Amino acid sequence: MTPIKPLDAAWLYVDTRETPMQVGCLAIFSLPPKAGPQFLKKLVEKFRATRDFAYPFNLRLTAPRFRFLLPAWEEDRQIDLEYHFRHSALPLPGGERELGVLISRLHSNAMDFNRPLWECHLIEGLEDRRFALYMKMHHSLVDGIGGMRMLARMLSPDPTSRDQRPPWAVGARARKPRPEGEVATPLQTAIDGVRTQLKTVPGVARAFGDIFKEALRQEDKDWALPFTGPRSAFNGKVSGQRRFATQHYSLDRVKKIAKAANVTVNDVFLEICAASMRRYLDEIKALPDKPLTAGVPVSVRPADDQGAGNAISFIIANLNTHIADPLQRLHAIHDSAQRAKHHLQQLPKADIDNYTALFMAPFMAQLLSGLGGHLRPMFNLTVSNVPGPDRVLYFNGAKMEQMYPVSLLAHGQALNITAVSYAGQFNVGFTGCRDALPSMQRLSVYAGEALADLERQLGGDGE
Amino acid sequence: MTPIKPLDAAWLYVDTRETPMQVGCLAIFSLPPKAGPQFLKKLVEKFRATRDFAYPFNLRLTAPRFRFLLPAWEEDRQIDLEYHFRHSALPLPGGERELGVLISRLHSNAMDFNRPLWECHLIEGLEDRRFALYMKMHHSLVDGIGGMRMLARMLSPDPTSRDQRPPWAVGARARKPRPEGEVATPLQTAIDGVRTQLKTVPGVARAFGDIFKEALRQEDKDWALPFTGPRSAFNGKVSGQRRFATQHYSLDRVKKIAKAANVTVNDVFLEICAASMRRYLDEIKALPDKPLTAGVPVSVRPADDQGAGNAISFIIANLNTHIADPLQRLHAIHDSAQRAKHHLQQLPKADIDNYTALFMAPFMAQLLSGLGGHLRPMFNLTVSNVPGPDRVLYFNGAKMEQMYPVSLLAHGQALNITAVSYAGQFNVGFTGCRDALPSMQRLSVYAGEALADLERQLGGDGE
Repeated sequence: MTPIKPLDAAWLYVDTRETPMQVGCLAIFSLPPKAGPQFLKKLVEKFRATRDFAYPFNLRLTAPRFRFLLPAWEEDRQIDLEYHFRHSALPLPGGERELGVLISRLHSNAMDFNRPLWECHLIEGLEDRRFALYMKMHHSLVDGIGGMRMLARMLSPDPTSRDQRPPWAVGARARKPRPEGEVATPLQTAIDGVRTQLKTVPGVARAFGDIFKEALRQEDKDWALPFTGPRSAFNGKVSGQRRFATQHYSLDRVKKIAKAANVTVNDVFLEICAASMRRYLDEIKALPDKPLTAGVPVSVRPADDQGAGNAISFIIANLNTHIADPLQRLHAIHDSAQRAKHHLQQLPKADIDNYTALFMAPFMAQLLSGLGGHLRPMFNLTVSNVPGPDRVLYFNGAKMEQMYPVSLLAHGQALNITAVSYAGQFNVGFTGCRDALPSMQRLSVYAGEALADLERQLGGDGE
Repeated sequence: MTPIKPLDAAWLYVDTRETPMQVGCLAIFSLPPKAGPQFLKKLVEKFRATRDFAYPFNLRLTAPRFRFLLPAWEEDRQIDLEYHFRHSALPLPGGERELGVLISRLHSNAMDFNRPLWECHLIEGLEDRRFALYMKMHHSLVDGIGGMRMLARMLSPDPTSRDQRPPWAVGARARKPRPEGEVATPLQTAIDGVRTQLKTVPGVARAFGDIFKEALRQEDKDWALPFTGPRSAFNGKVSGQRRFATQHYSLDRVKKIAKAANVTVNDVFLEICAASMRRYLDEIKALPDKPLTAGVPVSVRPADDQGAGNAISFIIANLNTHIADPLQRLHAIHDSAQRAKHHLQQLPKADIDNYTALFMAPFMAQLLSGLGGHLRPMFNLTVSNVPGPDRVLYFNGAKMEQMYPVSLLAHGQALNITAVSYAGQFNVGFTGCRDALPSMQRLSVYAGEALADLERQLGGDGE
């Protein structure tokens, strides 16, 4: 029996029918050139026959009904693999739309707390000789970035390799204290930040109050502060049902735009998110007058750091959704992000940690008497850009075409947009609340069109 | 706003992650002779375009989070049809096994209490030019038999008819007081019986105590009494995951056996259930020494009834699973069922009602401090045989090949076997708890073999 660390256990506390705390990863593969229908059949058979369970796929809660009092893991020695590994199919025509609908449903289904908290779905029937793999895990076991890394560990850069095993046999590295100087994931840093000061849940409550008051006291007009974004359709209570949509671009297109406009790749990403949200909200007559803000993970070097170490923290970027012109908006976003990053870089390490801990607030607010969705939003949504594998990867000869993160939501945070780079691609996953975001797939379509708009404007202006 | 009747609301009270109180119905259709792949595509389009919601498909809970305090329905005027109607597909080879796995998963998923409590799944990819329709509803809205009737109302005996509408547009008849003499469903009678005496939940608690004591005081050796069955693998706490398996026979085969052995069709059904359970439990080394008992709905005429009215009640049949010989067991089951029915027929109407109410006990026990699964079982499982449509029915030209009930479980009742007759067929649905009944599909295979065993024995003896 291994007690669960308090901040990992927090994901169990805030898990409800409305806010299942599960993160997912969707990978799309194409069949190897000469493979027939037997390829998937054999893969399914191989998966079904693989009964080695690596960390953390072998863990279950010691006392599921008392997980609030005694959060602890134990090894499950009788895992019902047929429950966790599921062979599914798409109805015709088996396009991106049908895949999005299925992933939305699978990601909405609650997990069974009596079993190891993961599912792996092999999905056939995707058009153009493709298939998909969708992994779902509870956030108390792994974070979204950890999930993407786990997927990458399972794959190989060698298209002729045929000995690759299913994710549960490969597993993840156990969480260990990080060596000095190594870059941690944003969420881990946030959790560590909270943990350092607080240790216990009552402590979290106290700190949350302090940080909240601090944020409201400050009135720096140029800087997008927490809790200063407008209320929007994205910031009410969420229901238990999710929507999921995807979009992928060539990374070169994004880089070219960034270069032509003299901004960063991340600024371009923020702008296409801003453009699509502006259009979407305008259509449903819900565009706030004040600009939306986004919480964005960034890497900074603390002011008092003499070595080469970086810290991962968050900035709040002003998405400038009140500006109609794409290029003008892109530059305003760039200025806001630069300003926020500059502010952050002047802080000593300890303050960065305190500040970073603030970004756990939407989840903590939920933990503390259901404040989430009632407070003014700390920021309107999270937009995050995660570096992924830079080489093309294969699974038993099947080329991975795209990979997407499927995220979790909290009350007050009904939309999450996370991008992951992969072998020259920029893959974006939109995870939203079904009720707050009707026809959410339009967001992904509009994001695609926003990129083309920028290219048109910059092409005309710059050449 | 319509307050929910206390005993309908009881299904909301006992609904937990482990015991979702949803009933289902699975119908398998074959495509019309000349139909191509466009047939299902057009059907899906027609379903998606049908936004008339008949009773009870238009109802949602007034206050989902406070359903225990204020159980009431209201009309939902903004139904999100894409949530309720789902187009799904089976992976290859698309056989009975893949269908059973998908139904097991769908029937295990919890419903969203913020929406009307139903789902309708159109499932493609079933081999031999077939497709399936799976309906799921909360038991507070409809019982299993009501669900089967609703399905039948949607269909037509005319294979050329093309104007049939999806189930939610057809709906069910609203529950009304039944005219004198009309036969009610067993469950409705049970509910009415409890309701007549008790009205309120505290009353149910009191009555449950009385009935329980009464049952323990009686010691009639020949009669299979409540709470005298052995503990078995079917009678512990259940988990939230279900298994579903099916089996279908020609009704003529069952009738021939019944005639040759001079027993009823229901006796033959009980015997094939007994035979398969005996074999299944023996294989997992869990066959109790004492015979298993089954709660079986039957129709009886009360001793004090001067008119033509029948009452539906339950008998407890001794399944004689300690007897190895099939024919000997069949006769012993027949004797037990006759004895129980005879006992019941001597009771006046009021006593039958009291007795019938007892069969709500597994659910009531669960309601009252989680007793279910700890008490000695009232009976080991429910075996029920429901009359269905006697003519072949069609849906927009697609012939319904089989229809199956998908049942609910309670703690202490990890297996339910329900048969429905349909156009010369006897269709049996096995609904079990995933954890209590590993490899449950063997039960359905063994039931099929048990029927052949009886034919062999009776053929040899009788001709």
